[in-house]
Amino acid sequence: MSAIFHAGISGARGRMGRAVSAVLDAREDVVVAARFDRGESPDLSLCDVIIDFSTPEASVELAQACAAVGGPALVIGSTGLTEEQDAEILKAAEKIAIVRSGNFSLGVNILIGLVEHAAQRLDARDWDIEISEAHHRRKVDAPSGTALMLGEAVANGRAEDLEDIRMPPWDGITGPRETGKIGFSSTRAGGIIGEHTVLFASDDEVLTLSHSAIDRSLFAKGAVAAAAWVRSRKPGLYDMQDVLGFRQA
Amino acid sequence: MSAIFHAGISGARGRMGRAVSAVLDAREDVVVAARFDRGESPDLSLCDVIIDFSTPEASVELAQACAAVGGPALVIGSTGLTEEQDAEILKAAEKIAIVRSGNFSLGVNILIGLVEHAAQRLDARDWDIEISEAHHRRKVDAPSGTALMLGEAVANGRAEDLEDIRMPPWDGITGPRETGKIGFSSTRAGGIIGEHTVLFASDDEVLTLSHSAIDRSLFAKGAVAAAAWVRSRKPGLYDMQDVLGFRQA
Amino acid sequence: MSAIFHAGISGARGRMGRAVSAVLDAREDVVVAARFDRGESPDLSLCDVIIDFSTPEASVELAQACAAVGGPALVIGSTGLTEEQDAEILKAAEKIAIVRSGNFSLGVNILIGLVEHAAQRLDARDWDIEISEAHHRRKVDAPSGTALMLGEAVANGRAEDLEDIRMPPWDGITGPRETGKIGFSSTRAGGIIGEHTVLFASDDEVLTLSHSAIDRSLFAKGAVAAAAWVRSRKPGLYDMQDVLGFRQA
Amino acid sequence: MSAIFHAGISGARGRMGRAVSAVLDAREDVVVAARFDRGESPDLSLCDVIIDFSTPEASVELAQACAAVGGPALVIGSTGLTEEQDAEILKAAEKIAIVRSGNFSLGVNILIGLVEHAAQRLDARDWDIEISEAHHRRKVDAPSGTALMLGEAVANGRAEDLEDIRMPPWDGITGPRETGKIGFSSTRAGGIIGEHTVLFASDDEVLTLSHSAIDRSLFAKGAVAAAAWVRSRKPGLYDMQDVLGFRQA
Repeated sequence: MSAIFHAGISGARGRMGRAVSAVLDAREDVVVAARFDRGESPDLSLCDVIIDFSTPEASVELAQACAAVGGPALVIGSTGLTEEQDAEILKAAEKIAIVRSGNFSLGVNILIGLVEHAAQRLDARDWDIEISEAHHRRKVDAPSGTALMLGEAVANGRAEDLEDIRMPPWDGITGPRETGKIGFSSTRAGGIIGEHTVLFASDDEVLTLSHSAIDRSLFAKGAVAAAAWVRSRKPGLYDMQDVLGFRQA
Repeated sequence: MSAIFHAGISGARGRMGRAVSAVLDAREDVVVAARFDRGESPDLSLCDVIIDFSTPEASVELAQACAAVGGPALVIGSTGLTEEQDAEILKAAEKIAIVRSGNFSLGVNILIGLVEHAAQRLDARDWDIEISEAHHRRKVDAPSGTALMLGEAVANGRAEDLEDIRMPPWDGITGPRETGKIGFSSTRAGGIIGEHTVLFASDDEVLTLSHSAIDRSLFAKGAVAAAAWVRSRKPGLYDMQDVLGFRQA
Repeated sequence: MSAIFHAGISGARGRMGRAVSAVLDAREDVVVAARFDRGESPDLSLCDVIIDFSTPEASVELAQACAAVGGPALVIGSTGLTEEQDAEILKAAEKIAIVRSGNFSLGVNILIGLVEHAAQRLDARDWDIEISEAHHRRKVDAPSGTALMLGEAVANGRAEDLEDIRMPPWDGITGPRETGKIGFSSTRAGGIIGEHTVLFASDDEVLTLSHSAIDRSLFAKGAVAAAAWVRSRKPGLYDMQDVLGFRQA
Repeated sequence: MSAIFHAGISGARGRMGRAVSAVLDAREDVVVAARFDRGESPDLSLCDVIIDFSTPEASVELAQACAAVGGPALVIGSTGLTEEQDAEILKAAEKIAIVRSGNFSLGVNILIGLVEHAAQRLDARDWDIEISEAHHRRKVDAPSGTALMLGEAVANGRAEDLEDIRMPPWDGITGPRETGKIGFSSTRAGGIIGEHTVLFASDDEVLTLSHSAIDRSLFAKGAVAAAAWVRSRKPGLYDMQDVLGFRQA
């Protein structure tokens, strides 16, 4: 179906790096040409694309190194970058193709596109939107980063700024719901891998768009799909919406 | 199937009184013998049972009047009684049979029984419990009274006091979940009539017990079912768990 | 917000006609200029748009009458038309603007658009699609017409013909699932108004798109929204996807 | 908490045998004293209890061997036994304690108990019951064995025989639903591990009891919990309802 390509893994000994390695090993159209962690200097010329789940510092250094020699392309899944670090990635993307995302699940990224479409079409005066998510008992923050990405999709669809319309969880004497706001709620229990639901409700009907993870390997698979896509792109900063073709929709 | 009985409606002009009236009118085994509101003095001797959705004061007065003459039986759905008023109802129940409940839906009361059973059997060290509910945009408080009744059922099943194990909604940096706590979350959107879910999750599986209202008349129907049950009981204070036979289970 | 328009109701004494009437009466931007049933000859010149839930014959006659005088626009919700009757509607639509649909719920029609988008983007070799629906115990056929509309949306998204990929319900010794097929399943119970779910599942994740009706009036409201949209369109045959702007998407 | 016990694994090289082995290895209160497959003769005296996921023939032989020497206790998860083989197990259970089950998930077995309770309490004239299940694309039969166990629980609750009230899937022109029947529906898609839902619906409300598997190891864990329970029981044939204390409820 597609030509063989050569992939590198940055952050290879981390949890995500190992998951990416397992996914790459199972594909027949990929050769893993380099595995490295911070402090190691891979031969970049061996790779068509590098998948990076490392640290903000390592990601920036890698992006700069790749940009300096005009390639390879990058898939960056590291999170928690500062604004300056974000700017460095953006600068590197003038020279090379980079996909960045906080969630590489294909399903979640399809969901984000669908949510934006629906939010754009359903009048905020008639339709209330609530986002709920459920995760395992070890998760330490709420709502999840993905729930907030879904909130951004709603806000985009409604041409609003999420911070202006985001509500705290419903608790106590709240009074009736304000038009145009977005509610968030979270559940923490057992070993739930990750579930996200965006609910649109009018007086008469409810539209529910949900995603549920079955297997933790799905995030690694999505990163590999992004790698297969980005290796032949022209320089620029892309995200999973580009990979999936939602940008043009 | 069953003999005809004579029912009275207290708070007859209120929203619930009218709904009860419609349900009674549709049954062939009931004669509505009296409809009254506060300030009116019905002839109690006409009724086998009176269904009361009025005010705390009117409910107490009615209970005292019925107790004074040894009948009829009562179904009381008024809420917001003070501790003293509660005590008056309890005292009246020494002379007459009274069913009191905050939710007359048969389904919700079945759910309460099932939740207590499950909570008793699922070890709190392995199973986390979360209660979520969804209601229309006009509801002014969260969580719903019924969600708290479900929380009480969990606490009973675990031989705990709800106030000791109830968590506020998950929000911000929460840290990992504490063993044995119960989480609550709420959704407010559109015209959702009322949905309640109790989720039990271990590392490997999830058990979900839910109730969803299709039609608002269901609360009136439940009160009428309670009336048909209580009219031939001996004096005492009962609730829907008694009506449904869960007490003996 | 919008100028007042004049609406007619065809099939005014039928169940849907009365529901449409109630919705129109509640809107301030509409004057109901005519209510009629078969055999009655309304003054078409009084109306900007006519909403028709009648019979195939009455709908065809109405469309021909409107086309003959160049208006008003039509919203046709009658079902069960023969191919010849379909052709007559199409012919009338050369002269006047007509919206036809089997389901005027805004939510269902949004769902149809989202399902087509998702089916187009999720590779049939990796993602299985199943459509399930639940309705009240009085419904006499399965799957619902709306479930089949959702199946058509999937087939469109995958550039397939629904009849080639539709599976009968899973029952007995079925063997493993064939790639690219669509499964359907139905539930019939109690008073469930109407629920539809399209599930997309890969090995690692599940995407679920659902619609649930809260109140039966929603279909009438959708027809009225179509009327408000179509009254100022140029001649042509439209459906709810046009009304909602999904066609251009 | 509990004393150390010695467990044997029959069918040790099979998929379930290995899963049971992994669960036993992770527990501090168990010593694995024997692992064997068909044709191997373990020293039964080393074990307090043996967990057996083998074949019908091997299970019968093992039960007879244990019964002949008065122990150890058994947990039997083999399926597909003939009536004669069932009778042999029953005969062995006169001498030793045996737990047999088609599904060792604690959650599913809790669900079975709850479903029977609910079916007993909800009048079949008012409440329709539907059972739905979803599994991965590799499953070759429908409905699942567990769905049928849930159907048996409904039938028990209603004092009926499942075969008398079980409906085929809803498909085509079905006519309105008959009172008292149970519907079944199945979904096959992607990698869904296993989901079961029992829905009770009246005209006005819906009660839904569901189970969802997160991790395939849960069945092995349930078998081990059964082993810990059965090793100190008196002779008899038990199932997971006994293990969980539902029998006395």
